[in-house]
Amino acid sequence: MAEGCDILNNIVVNARAECTGQAHRQELFPFMINIGVVTISDRASNGVYEDLSGKVIIDTLGAYLVSTWNLEYRVIPDEQDLIEQTLIELVDVRGCCLVVTTGGTGPALRDVTPEATAAVCSKMLPGFGEMMRAESLKYVPTAILSRQTAGIRDQALIVNLPGKPSAITQCLQAVFPAIPYCIDLINGPYLQENPDIIKVFRPKQ
Amino acid sequence: MAEGCDILNNIVVNARAECTGQAHRQELFPFMINIGVVTISDRASNGVYEDLSGKVIIDTLGAYLVSTWNLEYRVIPDEQDLIEQTLIELVDVRGCCLVVTTGGTGPALRDVTPEATAAVCSKMLPGFGEMMRAESLKYVPTAILSRQTAGIRDQALIVNLPGKPSAITQCLQAVFPAIPYCIDLINGPYLQENPDIIKVFRPKQ
Amino acid sequence: MAEGCDILNNIVVNARAECTGQAHRQELFPFMINIGVVTISDRASNGVYEDLSGKVIIDTLGAYLVSTWNLEYRVIPDEQDLIEQTLIELVDVRGCCLVVTTGGTGPALRDVTPEATAAVCSKMLPGFGEMMRAESLKYVPTAILSRQTAGIRDQALIVNLPGKPSAITQCLQAVFPAIPYCIDLINGPYLQENPDIIKVFRPKQ
Repeated sequence: MAEGCDILNNIVVNARAECTGQAHRQELFPFMINIGVVTISDRASNGVYEDLSGKVIIDTLGAYLVSTWNLEYRVIPDEQDLIEQTLIELVDVRGCCLVVTTGGTGPALRDVTPEATAAVCSKMLPGFGEMMRAESLKYVPTAILSRQTAGIRDQALIVNLPGKPSAITQCLQAVFPAIPYCIDLINGPYLQENPDIIKVFRPKQ
Repeated sequence: MAEGCDILNNIVVNARAECTGQAHRQELFPFMINIGVVTISDRASNGVYEDLSGKVIIDTLGAYLVSTWNLEYRVIPDEQDLIEQTLIELVDVRGCCLVVTTGGTGPALRDVTPEATAAVCSKMLPGFGEMMRAESLKYVPTAILSRQTAGIRDQALIVNLPGKPSAITQCLQAVFPAIPYCIDLINGPYLQENPDIIKVFRPKQ
Repeated sequence: MAEGCDILNNIVVNARAECTGQAHRQELFPFMINIGVVTISDRASNGVYEDLSGKVIIDTLGAYLVSTWNLEYRVIPDEQDLIEQTLIELVDVRGCCLVVTTGGTGPALRDVTPEATAAVCSKMLPGFGEMMRAESLKYVPTAILSRQTAGIRDQALIVNLPGKPSAITQCLQAVFPAIPYCIDLINGPYLQENPDIIKVFRPKQ
């Protein structure tokens, strides 16, 4: 499923270190699929509990994708600056074409993931949040409290998922059919899905 | 239903006057439930017509809640500065955990309630507006013109409802099931609903 | 259907040239219905392909409206500055009460129509985007990638439609029932629809 590419990682980082300006990993290794999974949780990052949410995302993406992809996995506390820095690093340095976050999307004081996402994106995609809330509303009326969103930073799509494992599965299943085509549109790598597991949509050209 | 607590009000205001910094009424009287109802209407505030909308909100909240709560009721014109000042006063000085507005959410020049709400909130909850519009769309296609939203200021939830009494009832019924848990999440007081009238949702811990 | 009013146009422009400040064409000729249709597409504006999308909008509005209206039609590339200038000219100088755009609402680098729209509007109407995405979701799961919105500039409603002709028809049919009343609310001219073709809604006063 998700496979480490440490040697390639080093090559890319070294290659990039010699670049100036806005060169992107995607331009250097256009065939590589790097995906970031970021668990945003004070308690998970402090070791108070195991990060089940991140594992659910990794397992689900692993089931959905038959393309080989490289996982960039982070577990960080609910600090807006740190979330922003992590998203920027994953997109600008690690060359992720997709970054999926979990946690920090509720109304509580420490929930700042949507604000951090908006701060690092050049354009927002409100349809992701609308669809995830509509999906979660099938299960709980408190779905209207979740503030998940999605946005574009350079050649990467950043998607906020909810914090709870069951809600993650529901929401990722709802929005994933649009994700590979979105990454096509922003000149990212081609994500090949497993059609026995998930049906994605790409319009005929 | 809504009961005046003028003596306690005075105690709190006096206690607060001795505080410096960010002390909140909720910390002083955590058992008190103060709810603001703000009618925003040039005509109602000028006495051109009776404020039926505010009364519908007060009656509906009175039917939904079995907790004792204190009403802070205001009728003001559609002036953005005044709306912002009123929301700030209700949350910061009066210690409201919930402020419900009616009026000023349409597309007309004088409709500025969502802008005032966003200006005083630290985070927005787009799911409230989405749900209210989806609910109102069952009745009128012009529901897409309403710009209601909701947001968090400190330990308070601010919710914009539409202006018309019939739409108020529909929208409040749609979003109320999520409100008590939202106030739990922002460390507000426990709102006990009347389960014979409205079904609210709190996830099992 | 859409009829040129060049003589009146010149009168208005001349009249306006003598005005200072915020005089609007609507105040000068309140009975005139000017509607802007703006195709935003690098390829259509370069002549790479014919602008079918703009034609679909013009034909659809022509079928929906029995009022006489004047078309202001533009085909421009996906440049945010130019989109903003065009929207401003259509509203402030040409006196359009309605401007409908097509194109530039996706996630790609050159898609900047929603940003340009938000930049020139004083208030946004998120319900239009929500409804168009919900409508398009009946056909394709990638509808969540479209970022269409709508907003108010002075006495004009600006609506972003998607780029593809089939999606345009679906979305315009979904939101048009609310448009004439919206224009009433912002003191624009009265748009009379053809009730055999489209059903619009105006609440009884």
